[in-house]
Amino acid sequence: MKLHQIGELELLREVRKRFSSYSKINGSSVIVGIGDDAAVIAPQKEKILVTTDMMNERIHFDLSFTSPFHLGFKLVSVNASDIFAMGGRPKYLFLNIAMKKEEDENTFWKMYEGIFSAMNIYGVSLVGGDLCATENDMVLSATIIGAGDKVITRGRASVGDKIYVTGTPGDSACGLEILKRLTDESKEIIKNLEYWNNSHKNIGVLEYWSNELKNTIDWDIAEPLLRRHLMPVARDSAEIANYATAMIDISDGLFIDLCRICDESNVGARVYLNKIPMSDEMKKTAEIMKLDSIHLATSGGEDYELLFTAPPEIKFEIRNSKFEILKTTCIGEIIEKDRVVVDKSGKESALKTEGYQHFGTSG
Amino acid sequence: MKLHQIGELELLREVRKRFSSYSKINGSSVIVGIGDDAAVIAPQKEKILVTTDMMNERIHFDLSFTSPFHLGFKLVSVNASDIFAMGGRPKYLFLNIAMKKEEDENTFWKMYEGIFSAMNIYGVSLVGGDLCATENDMVLSATIIGAGDKVITRGRASVGDKIYVTGTPGDSACGLEILKRLTDESKEIIKNLEYWNNSHKNIGVLEYWSNELKNTIDWDIAEPLLRRHLMPVARDSAEIANYATAMIDISDGLFIDLCRICDESNVGARVYLNKIPMSDEMKKTAEIMKLDSIHLATSGGEDYELLFTAPPEIKFEIRNSKFEILKTTCIGEIIEKDRVVVDKSGKESALKTEGYQHFGTSG
Repeated sequence: MKLHQIGELELLREVRKRFSSYSKINGSSVIVGIGDDAAVIAPQKEKILVTTDMMNERIHFDLSFTSPFHLGFKLVSVNASDIFAMGGRPKYLFLNIAMKKEEDENTFWKMYEGIFSAMNIYGVSLVGGDLCATENDMVLSATIIGAGDKVITRGRASVGDKIYVTGTPGDSACGLEILKRLTDESKEIIKNLEYWNNSHKNIGVLEYWSNELKNTIDWDIAEPLLRRHLMPVARDSAEIANYATAMIDISDGLFIDLCRICDESNVGARVYLNKIPMSDEMKKTAEIMKLDSIHLATSGGEDYELLFTAPPEIKFEIRNSKFEILKTTCIGEIIEKDRVVVDKSGKESALKTEGYQHFGTSG
Repeated sequence: MKLHQIGELELLREVRKRFSSYSKINGSSVIVGIGDDAAVIAPQKEKILVTTDMMNERIHFDLSFTSPFHLGFKLVSVNASDIFAMGGRPKYLFLNIAMKKEEDENTFWKMYEGIFSAMNIYGVSLVGGDLCATENDMVLSATIIGAGDKVITRGRASVGDKIYVTGTPGDSACGLEILKRLTDESKEIIKNLEYWNNSHKNIGVLEYWSNELKNTIDWDIAEPLLRRHLMPVARDSAEIANYATAMIDISDGLFIDLCRICDESNVGARVYLNKIPMSDEMKKTAEIMKLDSIHLATSGGEDYELLFTAPPEIKFEIRNSKFEILKTTCIGEIIEKDRVVVDKSGKESALKTEGYQHFGTSG
């Protein structure tokens, strides 16, 4: 059925019914959930963290290779990531969803499955939101309210602190490069991979265009990169927050986001290019597709990895987080003023930023 | 300058600079405002109220007669109204704004002026948000976090309670009917009325189309109706909340929203048509334009008046609120089961709902 055949009230009633159990994850603290003029949450002893992010069709996502499930999953992850980046725990989710009237009901429910799948990982409750029609592009926004006592801003990095990054930046941007090159048939395959979890089907190979010729890339190489782009899991900062002096999540690119820490903390940074962790899959794909792996890792956006600083006496390596084993790598140190990169040969040069900016022509 | 010539970061920096004073209204309680991954608010002793609402171009607003100032003002009011409707006080504002890259900088700043003008009325601080590009229609959403101890839901109306409404419902819907009929020249006049406050200019008359003939309507009659539609001030419930048993703000229509109270409270309602307060301006306009005034008052949307129930021993008439004198009228009573209207002659009939519903074909 099309959305306009169902109507807003019936859809909201159904959302409320289907997912009422999810509203109880943070149980007793939600006094009034979906269905009144506003949601009501019990008084909070900890500090309250709030973030909101928008995802617009044709700007943030391309429906030719993005499934509604992935879209919903990513919407929640992107916002959860912001709460983690402050050292907090995401708790309550509010959604604003605008879809075309002619959209199929299925798209709506698949998106909700993605949303609830991500909520489940982070332990977040859906407490409210708004649902409405749009004349053309789909627009999604989410607000997450979190809690935390020790809040890590971008503004407290000190000279001498080490700079760390979680995971392997560049995977998401590399995943997007693959997606953009895929043949229509391979895009369809990706879009229709129902539940993309650890027991997913091995597709064998994916076809992509290279100089107007069809080429193939192994599923095993492409899969972790596509997954990181399409359904990123935000990094839980619970343990990191005990030691970090400044923190940000990488949404626009490692270097541009590092510069934000430098700006707010009024410090400089030295980064060693050969220390920046890169996944084998990303390096292999970059080689096959003739992409610059260093550029992907330092300027690719949407990593949703945590970038943080910590005093030199703290040693990070592999830390367990609530829902994953989190690899953490030291990539440099905070210095007084300049922002420099050191290449393999030990030569220093100025750090150049280049990342995504809305309305902007370049960084 | 066009937005894409300025860039997102520069715009955000400018928002932060121009309006930093507004972030201090709720002063000490905002620990981290605009500019980090998430906003941080001090722990709250009261219950936390959260609401979020979206406004989409061509669905919720028509830029042929809506100025960016009015748009910004209304975005804040609509959300503040939801917090008041729960008996709370709006405190913190988060914005999601998506505009075309080619949009003029002026549109952006005029909208912010409207936003800040409304924030000023409600004593709300801007604490965070997201700014991004869109391929076509403008999309705005806002989240307001409020606080309150006594929360008034829709679910506690009791048999015997009286039903009250603030202001004069139907004004906003009547204002929209005028706007839709205006000539292009008159639409331009309305759109360019810079600051629409009590000392506004008297335009004399506005021209509108009626059966393909140009007609005029006095500015004095049209103005309060246009204002209620274009820049509604939400009703402060501070005093009402001391007595109300159930409350909602009228966004979709008096009758449909009354039915929501009935649904959630599991009760019926009897409404006396001749008791429903209607403004002289609305009645006059309805007569001139051959509109059904009762229909406008009972089914017109976007009133942003408060509709509430209270025990019969409480008498409401005119109550002062923080920023206005609020007229409150008793229009009926809560009964056990049926939903009925009583006409002038005393005849009862079933209450019929008809209000706006997204994706819906009719009510």
